[in-house]
Amino acid sequence: MDFTIRAAMPEDCKDISRMIMELATYEKMPDQVEITQRDLEQDGFSKNPFFQCIIAEVPEQHRTKESHAKVGYALYFYTYSSLKGRSVYMEDLYVMPEFRGKGIGKALMSKIAQLGLAAGCNQLNFTVLNWNKPSMDFYLSQGCLDVTSDMRTMRCEGAALESLAEGNPKK
Amino acid sequence: MDFTIRAAMPEDCKDISRMIMELATYEKMPDQVEITQRDLEQDGFSKNPFFQCIIAEVPEQHRTKESHAKVGYALYFYTYSSLKGRSVYMEDLYVMPEFRGKGIGKALMSKIAQLGLAAGCNQLNFTVLNWNKPSMDFYLSQGCLDVTSDMRTMRCEGAALESLAEGNPKK
Repeated sequence: MDFTIRAAMPEDCKDISRMIMELATYEKMPDQVEITQRDLEQDGFSKNPFFQCIIAEVPEQHRTKESHAKVGYALYFYTYSSLKGRSVYMEDLYVMPEFRGKGIGKALMSKIAQLGLAAGCNQLNFTVLNWNKPSMDFYLSQGCLDVTSDMRTMRCEGAALESLAEGNPKK
Repeated sequence: MDFTIRAAMPEDCKDISRMIMELATYEKMPDQVEITQRDLEQDGFSKNPFFQCIIAEVPEQHRTKESHAKVGYALYFYTYSSLKGRSVYMEDLYVMPEFRGKGIGKALMSKIAQLGLAAGCNQLNFTVLNWNKPSMDFYLSQGCLDVTSDMRTMRCEGAALESLAEGNPKK
């Protein structure tokens, strides 16, 4: 099947928002999605964007029955390793179920690798949910490594983040 | 002890590079450091920087015997969660051994929380090496959560990253 991969534009945010919800539903956490189309427009397309996004689009004749032509996306941003330097982080990689197995996911990920290398990055990093064996197998087949074992992933949010900012850490 | 926390400037990169090496030595991987003072200058202080950095500095009379006044740093950058939106990631938090226990690490981390909240972030994320119990205890005491259990951290680098970019994943 023909498809194109291109940089997202502000007018894609409605579809990106739709697909973020589809992905979160697949990941069994649709109730966790707090960001809206408007957040995406502001956060990804302002002067200093928080993320970048690429879109997979199919031609007219392959639109879904709901008339969607934008059938996949990858959301990414640049990060930094104080050991290895410039890195690219893939936050999301998603292809609508009926368009899987056609090389679209592979093409999206390949594009991020290209963009990362062009920007001087040495690493592409991302996470996969523990139970998501099909995705894990896909990534391992692409030469990716599971580097979970040597580190703990930590988070500070909500009231704890506010207390930390005030210099009064939450007990 | 008096100390100040301030944004890093290009002329701090020599000290940041020194402290990155000290941190890597503490983390038992000094041979893994590939970035140089010049990389830091280019990657952190160009038009679209890959990272931001804050520095902890002590007054003249508290300099180390090697005459270092810059005794700690935190390296961070902004990221994005497609569930929660704007986030800040703390790549490194370091204080020279003889200056620990004086609130400098806490002040550096608090500053990142402040900067993150001011930028509209909902989360502060970071990783800790598995064996580094003292750091882990410090972070837990600050209200941070260990969120390792639900995900796998993945990486693609070197020849695998190049193959991926070329669309010919490494077997």
